[in-house]
Amino acid sequence: MEAVNPLSSIRVVLSRTSHPGNIGAAARAMKTMGFGDLALVAPRHFPDPDATAMAAGAADVLTQARVFETLEGALADCALAVGFSARERDLSHAPLSLREAAASLLEATQEGKVALVFGNETSGLSNEELARCQRFVTIPSNPAYGSLNLAAAVQVACYELAVAASAFAAPPARDLDAASVGDVEGLFAHLESAAVSSGFLDPEKPGRFMQRMRRLFARARLERQEVKLLRGLLAALEDKRR
Amino acid sequence: MEAVNPLSSIRVVLSRTSHPGNIGAAARAMKTMGFGDLALVAPRHFPDPDATAMAAGAADVLTQARVFETLEGALADCALAVGFSARERDLSHAPLSLREAAASLLEATQEGKVALVFGNETSGLSNEELARCQRFVTIPSNPAYGSLNLAAAVQVACYELAVAASAFAAPPARDLDAASVGDVEGLFAHLESAAVSSGFLDPEKPGRFMQRMRRLFARARLERQEVKLLRGLLAALEDKRR
Repeated sequence: MEAVNPLSSIRVVLSRTSHPGNIGAAARAMKTMGFGDLALVAPRHFPDPDATAMAAGAADVLTQARVFETLEGALADCALAVGFSARERDLSHAPLSLREAAASLLEATQEGKVALVFGNETSGLSNEELARCQRFVTIPSNPAYGSLNLAAAVQVACYELAVAASAFAAPPARDLDAASVGDVEGLFAHLESAAVSSGFLDPEKPGRFMQRMRRLFARARLERQEVKLLRGLLAALEDKRR
Repeated sequence: MEAVNPLSSIRVVLSRTSHPGNIGAAARAMKTMGFGDLALVAPRHFPDPDATAMAAGAADVLTQARVFETLEGALADCALAVGFSARERDLSHAPLSLREAAASLLEATQEGKVALVFGNETSGLSNEELARCQRFVTIPSNPAYGSLNLAAAVQVACYELAVAASAFAAPPARDLDAASVGDVEGLFAHLESAAVSSGFLDPEKPGRFMQRMRRLFARARLERQEVKLLRGLLAALEDKRR
């Protein structure tokens, strides 16, 4: 069950960045979320002391960053290029919100490198740059002032993908608490019998009830204590009926 | 169904900020996500040209920001103070991840102002500051380098809350299946009343039962149909008892 970390297959591409401080801040944002592959397309100034200063503890991401003359070059080995844009007008199809897109972007890493492409601080991605992207993503923002700082946009994008990948979600203590398969199956059996005995579920026509419950609790990844609480509640509800 | 925008009941509190540029960048981050209430506790430099420069189009948030000598003052009119901390060691109880906490923080705005409290860039929140907070939230991050820039942390927090509030998202087709905050809150209320009426939960000593249920179902991200099924089952179990 050892899977490749999908975050390692994601590249952040910053195109025509004006301020080197933003490149450093973006590198820091990436590293805090577990990303390391940074490509720079025709940056105005790089390397630059401002970039290094803003990178703080992510100097290694800057050191390993590659500089390309064209966006085409930065995307040459990528399976998918995702353009981040606040504008809808120039897009060939409507952008997905970042939250909606996250799972499918992670999935796409199974086919190769996925590039998250961010344009210039002031002008965003040009039409030519957008034309190199196969999908478009937007970070929902205030219609009255939606101008996220470049590194802030990178931070939000990397955060969303890290959460979608459950990259750091489980605090170490929590895994010790994970319910066993037996615990969870016991809960499902209990849930089913309670549903039947209460008249909620017709055993002759069960429909997809248990299937849906299995799906829900599989997503939640139950803890041992949670199984206990749920079974305790079910038992109390049943007991009262006797 | 005209509800007050929950984002207008959320205050960002920056305590003992060292660099005024971070205050400006935080103001910009807030405004891009629809937030406007900024409180500063004993900032080293404020007002400051660096803050104004980094705020870009969010100068109004800076102008309206209030400065307090103590955290107590900044929280005086708040119903809930939420401490953002990367450290677990000093907390009286384990922090929720930002994603897990988002819905309940929005819900808390129904009772009054909710403060999101961020500490000094280098040292974070002190023990005294943490002691003024009733809940703790952590932004999941790279264990090898989890040092988000202050404004980047504010950006991620405001983004997560804006998404949870569906503040700017044109409801996409897929979201038809996601349970609304109202649906989920209805389930929690139903779950709690069933737990109490069955004798499982002592309303005088509720312990952490509802907190644990909230955490579980936040992880699962409930669908509308799942909420219906769970509430149907609860109702059937309750009905049988009459």
